[in-house]
Amino acid sequence: MADPHLYAVIMAGGSGTRFWPASRRNQPKQFLPIAGERTMLAATAERLAGLVDHERLIVVCGREHADLVRRSLPDLPAANLLAEPVGRNTAPCVAWAALEIRRRDPRAVQVVLPADHAIEPAEAFRSSLRAAVAEAAGNATLVTLGIRPTRPATGYGYIEAGEGSRGIEGHAVLAVTRFVEKPDLRRAQEFIDTGRFFWNGGIFVWRTDAILDAFRRHLPEVVERLAAARTGAEVEAAYPRLPSQAVDVAILEKAAAEERVRMVPIDYSWSDLGSWNALGDVHPVDEHGTCVAGGTALAAHDAAGCVVWGEPGTLTALVGVRDLIVVRAGNVTLICPRERAEDVRRIVAELGQEHDGFA
Amino acid sequence: MADPHLYAVIMAGGSGTRFWPASRRNQPKQFLPIAGERTMLAATAERLAGLVDHERLIVVCGREHADLVRRSLPDLPAANLLAEPVGRNTAPCVAWAALEIRRRDPRAVQVVLPADHAIEPAEAFRSSLRAAVAEAAGNATLVTLGIRPTRPATGYGYIEAGEGSRGIEGHAVLAVTRFVEKPDLRRAQEFIDTGRFFWNGGIFVWRTDAILDAFRRHLPEVVERLAAARTGAEVEAAYPRLPSQAVDVAILEKAAAEERVRMVPIDYSWSDLGSWNALGDVHPVDEHGTCVAGGTALAAHDAAGCVVWGEPGTLTALVGVRDLIVVRAGNVTLICPRERAEDVRRIVAELGQEHDGFA
Repeated sequence: MADPHLYAVIMAGGSGTRFWPASRRNQPKQFLPIAGERTMLAATAERLAGLVDHERLIVVCGREHADLVRRSLPDLPAANLLAEPVGRNTAPCVAWAALEIRRRDPRAVQVVLPADHAIEPAEAFRSSLRAAVAEAAGNATLVTLGIRPTRPATGYGYIEAGEGSRGIEGHAVLAVTRFVEKPDLRRAQEFIDTGRFFWNGGIFVWRTDAILDAFRRHLPEVVERLAAARTGAEVEAAYPRLPSQAVDVAILEKAAAEERVRMVPIDYSWSDLGSWNALGDVHPVDEHGTCVAGGTALAAHDAAGCVVWGEPGTLTALVGVRDLIVVRAGNVTLICPRERAEDVRRIVAELGQEHDGFA
Repeated sequence: MADPHLYAVIMAGGSGTRFWPASRRNQPKQFLPIAGERTMLAATAERLAGLVDHERLIVVCGREHADLVRRSLPDLPAANLLAEPVGRNTAPCVAWAALEIRRRDPRAVQVVLPADHAIEPAEAFRSSLRAAVAEAAGNATLVTLGIRPTRPATGYGYIEAGEGSRGIEGHAVLAVTRFVEKPDLRRAQEFIDTGRFFWNGGIFVWRTDAILDAFRRHLPEVVERLAAARTGAEVEAAYPRLPSQAVDVAILEKAAAEERVRMVPIDYSWSDLGSWNALGDVHPVDEHGTCVAGGTALAAHDAAGCVVWGEPGTLTALVGVRDLIVVRAGNVTLICPRERAEDVRRIVAELGQEHDGFA
């Protein structure tokens, strides 16, 4: 039976332009079945099955996406959907959810996690979370999961770990020395070489009183203004004036300096699906290094290393091309070298009024 | 007023896999608006307006495409549509049309031309044809139009011209020394350097009695078997047993050796649209060397030299790519480097039973 004091906060606020044109302004990545049959949000909720009861699942999203959340999670109680009037990064989102949970259960422990990551196997993930919950509940520390790096990635923040102890279910629990912003390649390689650095996946576990205490010390205006807002209308009025800050930077980095952060390392399959390049993390890659998903058929002649996304009933034909991203979704076709995957966001931003219907 | 003895034969029998996936097995290039608003067949007929009356326009096509011809040319008299039961290259097609025209008018002169070439301006083209008609009618020679080469193309046959005379409307009329099959690049350059070689565009003008006489001398079985077939059913029975031969090789090359072929050189815009690479011959090319057609919108970021075809209401987004062919037509998306345009035919041929619905 699920722990009656354990809540989960799924952060579903991203705009998801990195998977354009499959993701659109009105249909971000977390509401698409990028990694499987279900939307990424539904898969994220399903991954917590048995650990967190549906009635203790909180979803925070942009107001314009509230209907998409209801469609992805039809069993979610209406009161468990927190719709932000404007996006303010993760810190206000975490504070709002913590206040809402404290109102329901002052002794609650929370898992906070993004809606758009792919993690396998689910049972191993739940085991890591149980170890993190045990640590957070017992010692009032802020706990994060750290992903053991498989390459010197420059697209993630890193966590430096220190001394450790043994947690439950055989997991290590390490002290967190510091959080480091995305490094360049040379530095990322140095991090890897030490064996002490982990990727920051933005997955956190803490007691509600512990995170609210950390907010009061490091970002008091956010928690004070939100605590003062008693009605939905008051939250709506307060939100636009909150600072846009990431919880990692505003809270975790400072708490780490106070030696109040711990980490549970994980080493199974994790992907934040940060760009089309990551499609091969969650879908099969053929013998020529090409990954096809979305339901399209592929006809390839001397093609290799491509990432292909297309709809069922379509054929994607590749002749003599290497390392391309080829996406056909709705009324848009995108072609981009894999090494320029990050520039997809740029072209979406550049789509002017003339092409607004394609963004 | 149009010359009452002048007929035109439009050869619309190609299967057109080079423009796949816009062209399909059941919708070859000549039935698509590749070069403008109308199908290429309709544009070909329109280009003859004022020169050849509709009632003297003959179209030869594959039986499976007869409906597409009727849709492209709704005013074409039913008796002017010759539907081949099987394709046998151009020689049987030319012989059949010549026999049909002789039945109607033994004194007829004919223009024979492919349905899928783009030629501009139409008035200049008609002027060249008038000069060719005057030559063919007066001297009973087989006349071809020769396109003055603009580059050492290896994709065309060449015509070597000899001495000339002055035709009507200021056109030259040159003796044809020989027809040469597609050369390699070195040889093509040598041809160009002499100034005596022209591209063979497969556009011919001759008196009906002259071409039938040439068939009787060089390919007698074709004209004899077709002349013996009096009914549609008899033509259908005869056709599959005819040899598959090109009229250039079977008739023109041999007639040239007998000094019975003349050429009218043309130097305005001509394209046989032999592959997607030729799209820039008939559509504007932007300042980055990219050509977009078919109605799709383009969003390009650091892209150059591409050929893009897509349907109205779609957006094609190119990021950081060079010299690619990008086509989205119906249920198929094709990506291929421009230098591999010829391989498009190959991939269509390789589409197995599994992907038959996309061919």
